[in-house]
Amino acid sequence: MRIGIYGYGNLGRGVEAAVRQNDDMELVAVFTRRNPADVKLQTEGVKVYAASEAARHADEIDVLVLCGGSATDLPEQTPELAKYFNVIDSFDTHARIPEHFANVDKAAKESGHTALISCGWDPGMFSLNRLYANAVLPQGNDYTFWGKGVSQGHSDAIRRVKGVKNGKQYTIPVEAALESVRNGENPELTTRQKHTRECFVVAEEGADLAQIEKDIKEMPNYFSDYDTTVHFISEEELQANHSGIPHGGFVFRTGVTGFNGEHKHVIEYSLKLDSNPEFTSSVILAYARAVNRLHQEGANGCKTVFDVAPAYLSPLSGEELRAHML
Amino acid sequence: MRIGIYGYGNLGRGVEAAVRQNDDMELVAVFTRRNPADVKLQTEGVKVYAASEAARHADEIDVLVLCGGSATDLPEQTPELAKYFNVIDSFDTHARIPEHFANVDKAAKESGHTALISCGWDPGMFSLNRLYANAVLPQGNDYTFWGKGVSQGHSDAIRRVKGVKNGKQYTIPVEAALESVRNGENPELTTRQKHTRECFVVAEEGADLAQIEKDIKEMPNYFSDYDTTVHFISEEELQANHSGIPHGGFVFRTGVTGFNGEHKHVIEYSLKLDSNPEFTSSVILAYARAVNRLHQEGANGCKTVFDVAPAYLSPLSGEELRAHML
Repeated sequence: MRIGIYGYGNLGRGVEAAVRQNDDMELVAVFTRRNPADVKLQTEGVKVYAASEAARHADEIDVLVLCGGSATDLPEQTPELAKYFNVIDSFDTHARIPEHFANVDKAAKESGHTALISCGWDPGMFSLNRLYANAVLPQGNDYTFWGKGVSQGHSDAIRRVKGVKNGKQYTIPVEAALESVRNGENPELTTRQKHTRECFVVAEEGADLAQIEKDIKEMPNYFSDYDTTVHFISEEELQANHSGIPHGGFVFRTGVTGFNGEHKHVIEYSLKLDSNPEFTSSVILAYARAVNRLHQEGANGCKTVFDVAPAYLSPLSGEELRAHML
Repeated sequence: MRIGIYGYGNLGRGVEAAVRQNDDMELVAVFTRRNPADVKLQTEGVKVYAASEAARHADEIDVLVLCGGSATDLPEQTPELAKYFNVIDSFDTHARIPEHFANVDKAAKESGHTALISCGWDPGMFSLNRLYANAVLPQGNDYTFWGKGVSQGHSDAIRRVKGVKNGKQYTIPVEAALESVRNGENPELTTRQKHTRECFVVAEEGADLAQIEKDIKEMPNYFSDYDTTVHFISEEELQANHSGIPHGGFVFRTGVTGFNGEHKHVIEYSLKLDSNPEFTSSVILAYARAVNRLHQEGANGCKTVFDVAPAYLSPLSGEELRAHML
């Protein structure tokens, strides 16, 4: 199947790398809003085109992977490009998913294409685990923890503080909270009890460090509800030790069964990821395979990970899957 | 939806209990090979019929849950009952799944029913996790660990040893092996390095304890490849402390992404279950809901968990799922 990439940032590069791990896929085009001549790919022989010319290449691509941001890019791009392509995106603004779904569904149905939105790990693999676990244990509690990992939004917030030259923020689940959930204690946890935030900050020369630390720790929404630690380091240390984009997290469901709810059960799913964008890309490509198959079967409109039977994600046949993975 | 239970042992009782946790389900009949008058249910007003009369009640049941054993019951029962009912079973002899699938598929297609086999947690939820993780990380390694939990097969094997009155065996994953996998070290693990076996044995009066311990530890297939511990206890202690049927385990996939495989990822799924049969029953009922829906949509033939889109398991609508679980 022929893959196109629309937007060549961290996620786009992750998709490019992941295509090489899937023998049934080939990268055929990258679309960019930059000057195509300025975009250098890692893959020989793949064309780079202006984003505005994407529609002209519709016949060359089986599934177009949209690699833009959820704030402003995808709400416009996914419905628009679903007019010409089978599309998949990683739209992750949870509260706006119903609206985005409706827009993409309308466009994809009108054009007869297949779309899948909100693919990745949260939303994505974490959502799947919430759904499966809720269906299996109707009587129970859900817990999601994130980290240890880099939050881009919180890192951006640090960098907007006066006197801050650069910075990186890690979200860290509180070990005691994880253990309590894992032990089936069904704790009620406040925001502060679930996660801590650790900041590595490069200050401008002569900046007031105490003031920076105060400004960060008291920042509403981002930090004030959390126990936050601030470390001041050099730009060299930041580059050497904090240039990665790791992430991960935990999804739990704890519940009971039996005539009197006498038996406890704990379902735990966790991810430990060296590269958030590359893992997201890998999930997206598995679902791109599914989108292509669903389209070949005549499906159209918008789907989510909830609507796709797992077998569609695998290059193996039903027989092979039953013999080796069931 | 109207549920029938075929076989009223631990699993059948688990299904009976789980029906009460699902508002859209109702238990309407239990079929038994015992004398129906001797079977006392926990649920008021539900009829118990002889297994041989099941077909007469086909119109009263939307999905029949088969609760027999994999060795001899299900290979006969599932294809036979698929002639009259939508059926679901927990067939767990991994090596014989392809053959069982073919038999059930043939019967269900001929009669226009929908069947789902090998449902539970392994095969079942563990299989799903193997499939998802393999699709997402094509370049990697799989690890499955079981326990801590009671192995019925190994407990039976202990009880067949000369001088043993009663006994229970726990399969326990080796913590060091779990940690090594969790750390992404991709260890190559022998049978002995993955699990230990712990036996609680009630000896007959005057029995040769040293001989019993030797017979257990040297038993081929069951114990000789493992580090096994044998504890002699009284029947009272066995009843008081070891009458439960806990189980669980871990499914890992560790893999790499990036242009040079430079980023590691660990996907971990684990279950900690107070009651193996009750959890299995809960998984089965979620899939019974899917079987009923698939049948209403006109599907027929045999399915596995790989063939069912997750949304079919939930009582919530697509809109509700997207708004609250994605």
